[in-house]
Amino acid sequence: MNRKNDHPVIQLDEVSKAIIEQLQQDGRRSYAAIGKVVGLSEAAVRQRVQRLIDSGVMQIVAVTDPLELGFARQAMVGVKVTGPLEPVADKVAELAEVDYVVVTAGAYDLLVEVVCESDEHLLELLSCRIRTIEGVAATETFMYLRLRKQTYSWGVR
Amino acid sequence: MNRKNDHPVIQLDEVSKAIIEQLQQDGRRSYAAIGKVVGLSEAAVRQRVQRLIDSGVMQIVAVTDPLELGFARQAMVGVKVTGPLEPVADKVAELAEVDYVVVTAGAYDLLVEVVCESDEHLLELLSCRIRTIEGVAATETFMYLRLRKQTYSWGVR
Amino acid sequence: MNRKNDHPVIQLDEVSKAIIEQLQQDGRRSYAAIGKVVGLSEAAVRQRVQRLIDSGVMQIVAVTDPLELGFARQAMVGVKVTGPLEPVADKVAELAEVDYVVVTAGAYDLLVEVVCESDEHLLELLSCRIRTIEGVAATETFMYLRLRKQTYSWGVR
Amino acid sequence: MNRKNDHPVIQLDEVSKAIIEQLQQDGRRSYAAIGKVVGLSEAAVRQRVQRLIDSGVMQIVAVTDPLELGFARQAMVGVKVTGPLEPVADKVAELAEVDYVVVTAGAYDLLVEVVCESDEHLLELLSCRIRTIEGVAATETFMYLRLRKQTYSWGVR
Amino acid sequence: MNRKNDHPVIQLDEVSKAIIEQLQQDGRRSYAAIGKVVGLSEAAVRQRVQRLIDSGVMQIVAVTDPLELGFARQAMVGVKVTGPLEPVADKVAELAEVDYVVVTAGAYDLLVEVVCESDEHLLELLSCRIRTIEGVAATETFMYLRLRKQTYSWGVR
Amino acid sequence: MNRKNDHPVIQLDEVSKAIIEQLQQDGRRSYAAIGKVVGLSEAAVRQRVQRLIDSGVMQIVAVTDPLELGFARQAMVGVKVTGPLEPVADKVAELAEVDYVVVTAGAYDLLVEVVCESDEHLLELLSCRIRTIEGVAATETFMYLRLRKQTYSWGVR
Amino acid sequence: MNRKNDHPVIQLDEVSKAIIEQLQQDGRRSYAAIGKVVGLSEAAVRQRVQRLIDSGVMQIVAVTDPLELGFARQAMVGVKVTGPLEPVADKVAELAEVDYVVVTAGAYDLLVEVVCESDEHLLELLSCRIRTIEGVAATETFMYLRLRKQTYSWGVR
Amino acid sequence: MNRKNDHPVIQLDEVSKAIIEQLQQDGRRSYAAIGKVVGLSEAAVRQRVQRLIDSGVMQIVAVTDPLELGFARQAMVGVKVTGPLEPVADKVAELAEVDYVVVTAGAYDLLVEVVCESDEHLLELLSCRIRTIEGVAATETFMYLRLRKQTYSWGVR
Repeated sequence: MNRKNDHPVIQLDEVSKAIIEQLQQDGRRSYAAIGKVVGLSEAAVRQRVQRLIDSGVMQIVAVTDPLELGFARQAMVGVKVTGPLEPVADKVAELAEVDYVVVTAGAYDLLVEVVCESDEHLLELLSCRIRTIEGVAATETFMYLRLRKQTYSWGVR
Repeated sequence: MNRKNDHPVIQLDEVSKAIIEQLQQDGRRSYAAIGKVVGLSEAAVRQRVQRLIDSGVMQIVAVTDPLELGFARQAMVGVKVTGPLEPVADKVAELAEVDYVVVTAGAYDLLVEVVCESDEHLLELLSCRIRTIEGVAATETFMYLRLRKQTYSWGVR
Repeated sequence: MNRKNDHPVIQLDEVSKAIIEQLQQDGRRSYAAIGKVVGLSEAAVRQRVQRLIDSGVMQIVAVTDPLELGFARQAMVGVKVTGPLEPVADKVAELAEVDYVVVTAGAYDLLVEVVCESDEHLLELLSCRIRTIEGVAATETFMYLRLRKQTYSWGVR
Repeated sequence: MNRKNDHPVIQLDEVSKAIIEQLQQDGRRSYAAIGKVVGLSEAAVRQRVQRLIDSGVMQIVAVTDPLELGFARQAMVGVKVTGPLEPVADKVAELAEVDYVVVTAGAYDLLVEVVCESDEHLLELLSCRIRTIEGVAATETFMYLRLRKQTYSWGVR
Repeated sequence: MNRKNDHPVIQLDEVSKAIIEQLQQDGRRSYAAIGKVVGLSEAAVRQRVQRLIDSGVMQIVAVTDPLELGFARQAMVGVKVTGPLEPVADKVAELAEVDYVVVTAGAYDLLVEVVCESDEHLLELLSCRIRTIEGVAATETFMYLRLRKQTYSWGVR
Repeated sequence: MNRKNDHPVIQLDEVSKAIIEQLQQDGRRSYAAIGKVVGLSEAAVRQRVQRLIDSGVMQIVAVTDPLELGFARQAMVGVKVTGPLEPVADKVAELAEVDYVVVTAGAYDLLVEVVCESDEHLLELLSCRIRTIEGVAATETFMYLRLRKQTYSWGVR
Repeated sequence: MNRKNDHPVIQLDEVSKAIIEQLQQDGRRSYAAIGKVVGLSEAAVRQRVQRLIDSGVMQIVAVTDPLELGFARQAMVGVKVTGPLEPVADKVAELAEVDYVVVTAGAYDLLVEVVCESDEHLLELLSCRIRTIEGVAATETFMYLRLRKQTYSWGVR
Repeated sequence: MNRKNDHPVIQLDEVSKAIIEQLQQDGRRSYAAIGKVVGLSEAAVRQRVQRLIDSGVMQIVAVTDPLELGFARQAMVGVKVTGPLEPVADKVAELAEVDYVVVTAGAYDLLVEVVCESDEHLLELLSCRIRTIEGVAATETFMYLRLRKQTYSWGVR
């Protein structure tokens, strides 16, 4: 079976979807305000939200903008690995500048998104901290010229 | 000058960083609770949070997990484009299954993250809706085998 | 949901697995002989085999050896496609020399196994019948030097 | 000489071809039924079938469907090898999830078809059992999105 | 059958091989001198040589050295073709600077050896006469830095 | 200076070119017959031919056809090398099946033409004798499907 | 002949080399000062310098530093071209941000160095002005992370 | 912050730009002549030029033409590195034939321009001095066929 979890896939009803949409617009919208929109009491909204969080469907988090904080260089790094993939993925994931690591099938073994302050910072990260990890055979860096779309939610509408 | 914005890069003090960290753990933590941790009044925390949001440094949002919602196929699609890049990026960004589009320098012109329910869904998306966009010359798909790390914040600690 | 069929995945018991193994060794072994090995009556074996066939788990077929029949050139052809993938896959699948067509994610859009009598035959197939299909942008041919393993069954032992 | 076998290539007559076609439709069709179609006695059909099998032209086997048995991830793995090719091909061929290994000329040294239950299974196979074989320099995985055609016979019609 | 010719492959006896070796050293060596070495009369050598030439096994030709004649730039050009291969191969073969054209399986569709007087000459050939042929999609040029080995005979010793 | 030889490039007059053309047609044409065509005495032709050979402009040799001698598999092998190129080129050039070795600039370090009797022969050559040479990092094989043009002379007409 | 110019290659004597070295250090060093170092009169130095400039061996120019002038994004752009190369090279060379265009043999047809103010500038240049030139099939951009060496003179010491 | 220097980016006024343009035409033009064109005294021009040089905006240097000095082979070498990048860049930069070394993001880790006298010289440089540097995994050479544009100044007009 190709199911990845032990518990069943969650089927959201229309009310839960409406609640999630409200929170995608503003994660701190009050339960009372949400309740008015979706036609539930504040307590019922609070309970539903808690259940969505507990079941892992949704989390409510602060998301910061790297550019506003002076991190001007973003890039995707394709990594080719020699030997087992997971230990290398683990080592790469420990780096603070790395915000995304995925093991992929295809021309690269890992795709790694990095956020750096400058070209010097990126070069130091690549040269001294990623490429020196045992098992890293080669890297190819895709510098971001323009981030066109980034959303944090799927499967609701 | 290679600065990308008109307003200056924001330098966060230690208190603002501590507030962001609290909200990265739980986006709905009460201002009072945060105030106790960082040593500010509830009103001062509220004011600071509002300023961080207004300045674009941070947003607080619901983030849903595609796997829990039955979207079992994630992939990065490298797109090679003929002619201008931006119109193609715009068209790709309109697709609901696409949650990430970045224009890159390197072997691909666009990197596009897609979230699908199944192989059939992914094939239909690629074959009938991405590859038929005018200017798309070729696509190469990197199927995700395992998402190892994903964080939503940088530059604070 | 990422399930591909309407009916449920079949869980084989040990007896069914033993029957399949017998038929993998010799597809015409008599039900009586199989019954002796697996501890069932001839009728019970016949019934089980019919159910395995009807449910699509197994088929019993004649498999011919291309080399013995004078087809000396086998190759995998990686096909890069412009535009939609499925119409091209359909057209390629109609060719008699093609015994395998799969739509793939990665550097090629289709992988196509071909069986030919000679280099001339292969060249004619590639040049005049595959590369002239509308939507075929390029082909790369992997000539077989030695077929090391080929099995027709999975998931039983 | 570029002939690969000591015994001569077999030239099938029309009757043998008709028998093979019958068995490609149903590997357990009775010799009597086949005899009626092709105009031979049951004994003559039996004798011809035995000769086709003994000469290696044809075998009759049970073929199982990986998808029906819950093996939802199929992929072709291109393997690049350092040093001699055959020892690596041998080691890869020993793996149970591998149903096809061919040594090829071209950009990959081996093409390996694998059948797995899930992404996790595939990742474990690639990372811990294929990539750790001595001589494996790199792998590139072509995930199957849709199997369009698969036949088990050539050169008869 | 994968035989390419109607007449049978020729099996050379030791005397014919010895004659060919003599002529590989010097194509104008007298039949009498060859006869002494191989133990045949002049007439018998002449007859054997004529038969080797008539059957297509061997030709005796003047081979010129491009470098000595002022052709300082040699290169192999890999050509990628759109559509049928043979018409493009024919057009390329008509060019005087091209001394070798082979249709190949693999990353390039044609391999073309060219002999030019200078970089300007090579650029003009590529840009104005090869790349303008209908069906030529791309070329990649492998400039020769040093020709290490070139022999004109096989299979004799 | 980019001249490759100590002695000057040879400028052939029309008579020498005519002599070479005669010998390109038939390397054993008699000096008397050539003399009639080009308007020189037999002795003068003999002297000119000797000078062309001594200066390295031309040689007259037996050229055998691999296909006629049962060498049915020809291929160009692109070799990627680690470290110095020349020792690897030397080792490859020692192999009897190799009739051409050139050091190139570009995606491959060496281009090597090989002539083999069969796929098995080619596989053994690649796997056991080329890929085991120290410094050979990888090979990519371009199987010949059809040799379209091969000439042995340049720069005369 | 592979000579590229009509006039002969210039052989510099030791005095001319010493003069060039002085001017490589400081292009405005006075002829009197240079004369003292190389042992010539001011007039003789002036004459020699004029001859070196007139013959094309040397020029004395102001070279500006893009980084100091706010051009923070440098990149090499590999361009693949369809059809003739020179018209595309000409068009690319007209662009102000392009300071270097070379036609190359190999995986790219043109190598183009560009100097831009920002990622936005680079994206606009690539997308709207380079990729829209007729004959440009694809571009691959190599962003500069660090310029390690740049010299303006060869062949003297 | 993505600024690369401690001191601020320089904003040139129109007069400074005009001075630089004069010196781009002729690096030894007298300050008096420049002063007449830009409307300043000789002393003021001298002072401005000195400031432009001291601040690193501009240098005035002798630039020699490799072709005129007999360096007929120019090439860009793409270098792939194993492990840290900077030590390899440093070693490559020490070579006299190398006039340009840049660390890049993308398919190559370093781009290195080399200037050689001949193919032999280039081969020796690649084979014995670049490829033997520890950390150099592979090189790909792009031979220059024609240098179409080369300018030494940006950002002035």
